[in-house]
Amino acid sequence: MLLRQLFDSESSTFTYLLADEATRKAALIDPVLEHVERDLALLTELGLQLTFVLETHVHADHITSAGTLRHRTGARVVASRRGAPCADVHVGQGDVVHVGPLAVHVLETPGHTDDSLSYLCGDALFSGDALLIRGTGRTDFQNGDPGQLYDSITRRLFSLPDDTRVYPCHDYAGHAMSTVGEEKQHNPRLAGKSRAEFITFMNNRRIAPPRKLDIAVPANRACGLPPGSPHVAG
Amino acid sequence: MLLRQLFDSESSTFTYLLADEATRKAALIDPVLEHVERDLALLTELGLQLTFVLETHVHADHITSAGTLRHRTGARVVASRRGAPCADVHVGQGDVVHVGPLAVHVLETPGHTDDSLSYLCGDALFSGDALLIRGTGRTDFQNGDPGQLYDSITRRLFSLPDDTRVYPCHDYAGHAMSTVGEEKQHNPRLAGKSRAEFITFMNNRRIAPPRKLDIAVPANRACGLPPGSPHVAG
Repeated sequence: MLLRQLFDSESSTFTYLLADEATRKAALIDPVLEHVERDLALLTELGLQLTFVLETHVHADHITSAGTLRHRTGARVVASRRGAPCADVHVGQGDVVHVGPLAVHVLETPGHTDDSLSYLCGDALFSGDALLIRGTGRTDFQNGDPGQLYDSITRRLFSLPDDTRVYPCHDYAGHAMSTVGEEKQHNPRLAGKSRAEFITFMNNRRIAPPRKLDIAVPANRACGLPPGSPHVAG
Repeated sequence: MLLRQLFDSESSTFTYLLADEATRKAALIDPVLEHVERDLALLTELGLQLTFVLETHVHADHITSAGTLRHRTGARVVASRRGAPCADVHVGQGDVVHVGPLAVHVLETPGHTDDSLSYLCGDALFSGDALLIRGTGRTDFQNGDPGQLYDSITRRLFSLPDDTRVYPCHDYAGHAMSTVGEEKQHNPRLAGKSRAEFITFMNNRRIAPPRKLDIAVPANRACGLPPGSPHVAG
């Protein structure tokens, strides 16, 4: 599997390019609107055909390029059944998205938002804003729920093998990846912490809302396209 | 081999952690002073022993944590024979640094600076500021020389197998890695460009000097430690 990590420095968002090296079929996870030309250039240079755009959730801090990529490449947009209405394919727990011969398994991991998904491909886990490196997503808007997030991480993600590589949607400290084993042992919000302790910690955090919240959420429900755009529908 | 990419968002510098998973011996390539606690925490959490700090060159845009890491861990600092006088080991073309059983091969790749090294470990090339992703290091200070840089990249680095993974010291567009084959084919400064064209392009660039140039170069010649520090010497 070809895997490339890409970064948006404004929102500290990671985008992932996954591809099968034989068939050249590819998927982008959580692409960012401002980088659509960078990402299309990389696909062209690597000789890849974008078949899917996978959203981990309706983002509140940046706008997706999913709709633009669909229009420019013919890729299909994948989101949670509880996620963006503009998606071409709505998925849930246990579903599999086939990127050529690569099987991308859908894991429902709600708690940061109610539509949060993680994706597992081989030993690579794309954990969205559920599990971050030495942290977690916040739970104070978009139907976030700290108890649900604790369960998603500790029951669903931490049941994966310890050497599963963790690729989150964000990092703010300059880390790029982790493993399930590392997060079990060293994530300060989770290691040795009960569900009740996690809920109390998350409910007592006082952090400013994302600057783009009011713009990004409706834009991302339309795959990043302006209201009334002819390309909103799949 | 365990490999972690770390990032300094202020200077867009990548630091690399390399380690042998059996012996737990590790090296850091181009660590940044502001992140010394992050990097020491990661070494501790992963149960690694830092044995070497490898500098690709005397940096002009950020200050190294090499001296601090040496003092805190006992690691030895490695630099070019033309590089920082404070280093414990001065190396050149063909030398090998042994990180436990991992062989890190030294490649002299001058041109960005006269002391620029790249390091090759397995199929991973740490290309410093010589070869960047779809770009190169600048050549307008610290004895930079565009003709020398062209030769370093096209003769030395481009003679490696096409699937060699390229991990540069910087990226400013959100890319994290490339390959030798990709850069041969798609690097706009090099693909299909003659040595004379490259020299003309580099000599005609007009870009501001790094903000920290006057502070960083002398600091890095002292491994990032203040003048007169008892820990400057190895």
